[in-house]
Amino acid sequence: MRFASDNTSGAAPEVMAALVQANDGYDRSYGADAAMARVTDLVRGIFEAPDAVVHLVATGTAANALAIATHCPPWGAVFCHTHAHVAEDECNAPEFYSGAKLVLVPGDRGKMTPATLATALSQIGADGVHGVQRGMLSLTNVTEAGTVYTPAEIAALTARAKAHNLPCHLDGARFANALVATGATPAEMTWKAGIDVLSLGGTKNGCLGVEGVVLFNPDKAWELELRRKRGGHLFSKHRYLSAQMVAYLTDGLWLRLAAQANSMGQRLADGLRNRQAMVPEAHANMLFPEWDRGRHDRLEAAGAVYNRYPAPEGRERARLVASWSTTEADVDRFLAAF
Amino acid sequence: MRFASDNTSGAAPEVMAALVQANDGYDRSYGADAAMARVTDLVRGIFEAPDAVVHLVATGTAANALAIATHCPPWGAVFCHTHAHVAEDECNAPEFYSGAKLVLVPGDRGKMTPATLATALSQIGADGVHGVQRGMLSLTNVTEAGTVYTPAEIAALTARAKAHNLPCHLDGARFANALVATGATPAEMTWKAGIDVLSLGGTKNGCLGVEGVVLFNPDKAWELELRRKRGGHLFSKHRYLSAQMVAYLTDGLWLRLAAQANSMGQRLADGLRNRQAMVPEAHANMLFPEWDRGRHDRLEAAGAVYNRYPAPEGRERARLVASWSTTEADVDRFLAAF
Amino acid sequence: MRFASDNTSGAAPEVMAALVQANDGYDRSYGADAAMARVTDLVRGIFEAPDAVVHLVATGTAANALAIATHCPPWGAVFCHTHAHVAEDECNAPEFYSGAKLVLVPGDRGKMTPATLATALSQIGADGVHGVQRGMLSLTNVTEAGTVYTPAEIAALTARAKAHNLPCHLDGARFANALVATGATPAEMTWKAGIDVLSLGGTKNGCLGVEGVVLFNPDKAWELELRRKRGGHLFSKHRYLSAQMVAYLTDGLWLRLAAQANSMGQRLADGLRNRQAMVPEAHANMLFPEWDRGRHDRLEAAGAVYNRYPAPEGRERARLVASWSTTEADVDRFLAAF
Amino acid sequence: MRFASDNTSGAAPEVMAALVQANDGYDRSYGADAAMARVTDLVRGIFEAPDAVVHLVATGTAANALAIATHCPPWGAVFCHTHAHVAEDECNAPEFYSGAKLVLVPGDRGKMTPATLATALSQIGADGVHGVQRGMLSLTNVTEAGTVYTPAEIAALTARAKAHNLPCHLDGARFANALVATGATPAEMTWKAGIDVLSLGGTKNGCLGVEGVVLFNPDKAWELELRRKRGGHLFSKHRYLSAQMVAYLTDGLWLRLAAQANSMGQRLADGLRNRQAMVPEAHANMLFPEWDRGRHDRLEAAGAVYNRYPAPEGRERARLVASWSTTEADVDRFLAAF
Repeated sequence: MRFASDNTSGAAPEVMAALVQANDGYDRSYGADAAMARVTDLVRGIFEAPDAVVHLVATGTAANALAIATHCPPWGAVFCHTHAHVAEDECNAPEFYSGAKLVLVPGDRGKMTPATLATALSQIGADGVHGVQRGMLSLTNVTEAGTVYTPAEIAALTARAKAHNLPCHLDGARFANALVATGATPAEMTWKAGIDVLSLGGTKNGCLGVEGVVLFNPDKAWELELRRKRGGHLFSKHRYLSAQMVAYLTDGLWLRLAAQANSMGQRLADGLRNRQAMVPEAHANMLFPEWDRGRHDRLEAAGAVYNRYPAPEGRERARLVASWSTTEADVDRFLAAF
Repeated sequence: MRFASDNTSGAAPEVMAALVQANDGYDRSYGADAAMARVTDLVRGIFEAPDAVVHLVATGTAANALAIATHCPPWGAVFCHTHAHVAEDECNAPEFYSGAKLVLVPGDRGKMTPATLATALSQIGADGVHGVQRGMLSLTNVTEAGTVYTPAEIAALTARAKAHNLPCHLDGARFANALVATGATPAEMTWKAGIDVLSLGGTKNGCLGVEGVVLFNPDKAWELELRRKRGGHLFSKHRYLSAQMVAYLTDGLWLRLAAQANSMGQRLADGLRNRQAMVPEAHANMLFPEWDRGRHDRLEAAGAVYNRYPAPEGRERARLVASWSTTEADVDRFLAAF
Repeated sequence: MRFASDNTSGAAPEVMAALVQANDGYDRSYGADAAMARVTDLVRGIFEAPDAVVHLVATGTAANALAIATHCPPWGAVFCHTHAHVAEDECNAPEFYSGAKLVLVPGDRGKMTPATLATALSQIGADGVHGVQRGMLSLTNVTEAGTVYTPAEIAALTARAKAHNLPCHLDGARFANALVATGATPAEMTWKAGIDVLSLGGTKNGCLGVEGVVLFNPDKAWELELRRKRGGHLFSKHRYLSAQMVAYLTDGLWLRLAAQANSMGQRLADGLRNRQAMVPEAHANMLFPEWDRGRHDRLEAAGAVYNRYPAPEGRERARLVASWSTTEADVDRFLAAF
Repeated sequence: MRFASDNTSGAAPEVMAALVQANDGYDRSYGADAAMARVTDLVRGIFEAPDAVVHLVATGTAANALAIATHCPPWGAVFCHTHAHVAEDECNAPEFYSGAKLVLVPGDRGKMTPATLATALSQIGADGVHGVQRGMLSLTNVTEAGTVYTPAEIAALTARAKAHNLPCHLDGARFANALVATGATPAEMTWKAGIDVLSLGGTKNGCLGVEGVVLFNPDKAWELELRRKRGGHLFSKHRYLSAQMVAYLTDGLWLRLAAQANSMGQRLADGLRNRQAMVPEAHANMLFPEWDRGRHDRLEAAGAVYNRYPAPEGRERARLVASWSTTEADVDRFLAAF
């Protein structure tokens, strides 16, 4: 009954086995390891993007901050959702790396809309040199609210941004979960929908700690590499990042892990709804139901672990996150305790 | 015959076993894992420093940059050796994180002296608001030249710095190797010699990727934690950093690994000197002998892997680095090929 | 009929005369000029603050950015109004100098309220290391909407901030206008109301280009001086900044100039209201009336110069700013044309 | 006998008169003033550069820092002389604005040579992603040692830089003095010799506080404007910067002022040499003679004002700077006292 976050679960056996295997003998350092070439091949194949470049880092914040800094000048505005991870959960890392300003775009259930984005775009850059200039778009999928953008929704947003020639970033800390939830292909969810750079999450979905920054246009690849080093994010024993990502992307493991997480998330949502709980729309592995404080306390007493947030009228909102390692038994025990 | 760097070798079996074991089940994220408490206990015990605080990151550049940024204001000068890793090999990461200026202090064989440091100290900060102010001292041990500072030498340098109230940092990417080379205790090499903050290297000496930033004065601990997060260096699945460091520091593993590396380095040095090669002073696991190009080519043809640098008179300098995984057979094969 | 901004008017004759006089002969550079000592004396006397330190710069953006950077760490949140000058009109200068994040606090007519500030304070810093920490409060008086905070209103806001130990900044680009509008003394409007650091505007109110950063607590004075130099804002021929500020603060010139500007602003507002125009609350020298596009065009054709902004229902909002040099004849010509 | 610096003298009467005249009436702010168009015309004509763009700031440090930040990426190396103003006298402003690292190039009498520059160029950027990359060249003319580069010398240095495609900056805080000393035209000293961006000094040579950043290639003009605003260096009442620069560049005033300064500098050098003083090579208005401490004390007692620096064998080095306002009588009184 551990639903606090998908980052409280461990690494998938396949990933750990690959890591152990990668440990054998000597290997070249700083990204020149053989497995890194394999990572590039896998990414290019999976994304149907033969020119894409991928660089690996160990944390999602690093991936996002580097992606943003490489695409937005220090006097630029990054349009992101009010509750985006880059805005609320990264302690200014995007601003530190880029010098840019985050401009918050509202929208229900974690999603900006073409209309809210258009309003934000119209309010920035209209004042010449005095204000920040329109810089880039940064979307998150799965969103922080547990909802998912479809490729068509992403395309509608990037179209607004591209009307101003802005590059578009997708924070895909839960990218595999978004793919599974929508049935979209990696290409459909990214470059075919106008995404220029992707933070391709591995950590939350069965890796120990690895994220890819995927550049669909390779022009900025060297700059990103320099920024990665300057940020202290280039691994000397890089093989351990590569090995995780190879295992993750091989034979669809990443999608199988995400499918399990999403399936358990939906089982939880369905079970709670059947029990008359208020469960807002949730497309993937994360849900935010509400109930009264007493029930929360009883669930915790029964061994459930998850985050609680204040809600109106003496209620509290739960954040329940399923992961690749969540089992039906976990879910059912929770529902029984409920 | 892989002597290119200690970061081309893998992780020690004990470290990898601990990682595998840490993978079992759920654990709290972002440093709240149980193993992290164990890391703190180990560091405090080993360093005889009950108030010390340690934070973990995955790369040496991150450890150094965070240690420097936390102790030097943006208008400060960081006094470091001309060829320090922070000056030459970190692509401006220390400046990026701190805003400070690195002031290069010369000295033979990778070591500054009280005299060269005193000169540098006298040249900075004498011009009021116009120039940078004296900020901090950053030493490296083992040095980039493969030499080692003794605790007494460190104390003589920190005394110069402390006369100006400057905090003192030790880049200990090869800290264990320096301990083994000098026979000093961790406390003698650090706070007893005037060091305020240590980058405690694990990666090069048998870990996959983990470094500790050890603050002997805890006043700056929260600031360092915020800077770590803001730099994207806080691991969500932090247990994998903790597990490495616990294994590394338990039962003297770190010193045994370093002893093997140093011993193999000295075996190489002795063997080469016996064969009339010019091998400059080398105290630990890294040496920089010189010979003519033809011999370099023959060694490479025989399978030796190491870095080569231009040297005067048609010669070239080798960088040979032994690691915890270097065997006597490796060394002897190299000497035979030589 | 030049109402575009108070920065389109020139310098007051007394200020220009002082500048000419200061040009005579040699003087010490970089703030060691005799007139700077006089500036300090004047500020301390006028503000009843014998320990205050004042540093001069040439632009309001510099004053604000330096004040903020000196009081807010790079991982801090600066609470400011949604439409504050620091948020909308300084092209990221506060973020550039401080590394901090601006958190926007809403409120009608340019003013945050204790309630909106409390909400913002409660939303920041509750998430440990993951988000930015509460950093400082930055108010603006006269606000960007032309309204004025009373000392009591300021005190109510700083009390909220000080409950979290936050330093409080006042952007006083139009500080003299705020004093005149409220009848408050400089001390009542600042340190007696909880303000720690003030951007004391001169440029908009009859100087050529000079702003003071007034630190009521001198602990940060040297840091501010270093940041000023590092930002390129220390004048070598500093006497020209000092001379302006001495003239400005001597014999109440600053208040006389502001009184004229405010008086003309109110004459304009009264005249427009008498003519049935919709003129929102305006306490000082700046007003934002609305009328239809045709009338705007006719006023411009008649020679009126001011800024126009879109408004609902085919109307447009005017920004009309009176300055120390606005005359009754200017106002009456505008009203006649209206 | 005020020889401490050319920034201790006032503004030339023509410049002050222009400022007074510019004060009349209303004018557009933020660089849209009519005089700014005249500045552009003057610069383009004088430099024979019809596409050049010039932006004005109030300090030399701002001009240098903005010029550097606009031309060097944060992972770049700025090659400058060991004693360049940007390295020693700007409290990290170039690093603050650019994020880059200053790489110090040695050379006698304040001048780097093609050989010392070539060595520095060869030592940077050879290590791939690990070190900073070659970024740009920054020269100073007149140098900090009072010597002058000829156009041919500049061309020889920029050729070395351009072999690596590096942009080239000239810090011309004393640009007019360098022109007068060499007889070169502005074009010969700049773009014809490979300079891409110039800090065109006005302050030290008879203005109150104005410097131009002249971009011979206008591609970066908008970026520089945004960086100027973001640095707080855009004047609202910009007319006061423009008026100074127009007066300065009109009818050769700038060259006449520099000619007087240089002439007085040379009169001083000649007079001292005639009196057996040791006066190193000095081409313009600044010299660094040495003599014993007693003589320094006697000169100060006689009313001479200048800077003193330690020198070997109980001697001290003087820095004597003549300015546009130095008279023959000033010089002769000093020589008599000597």
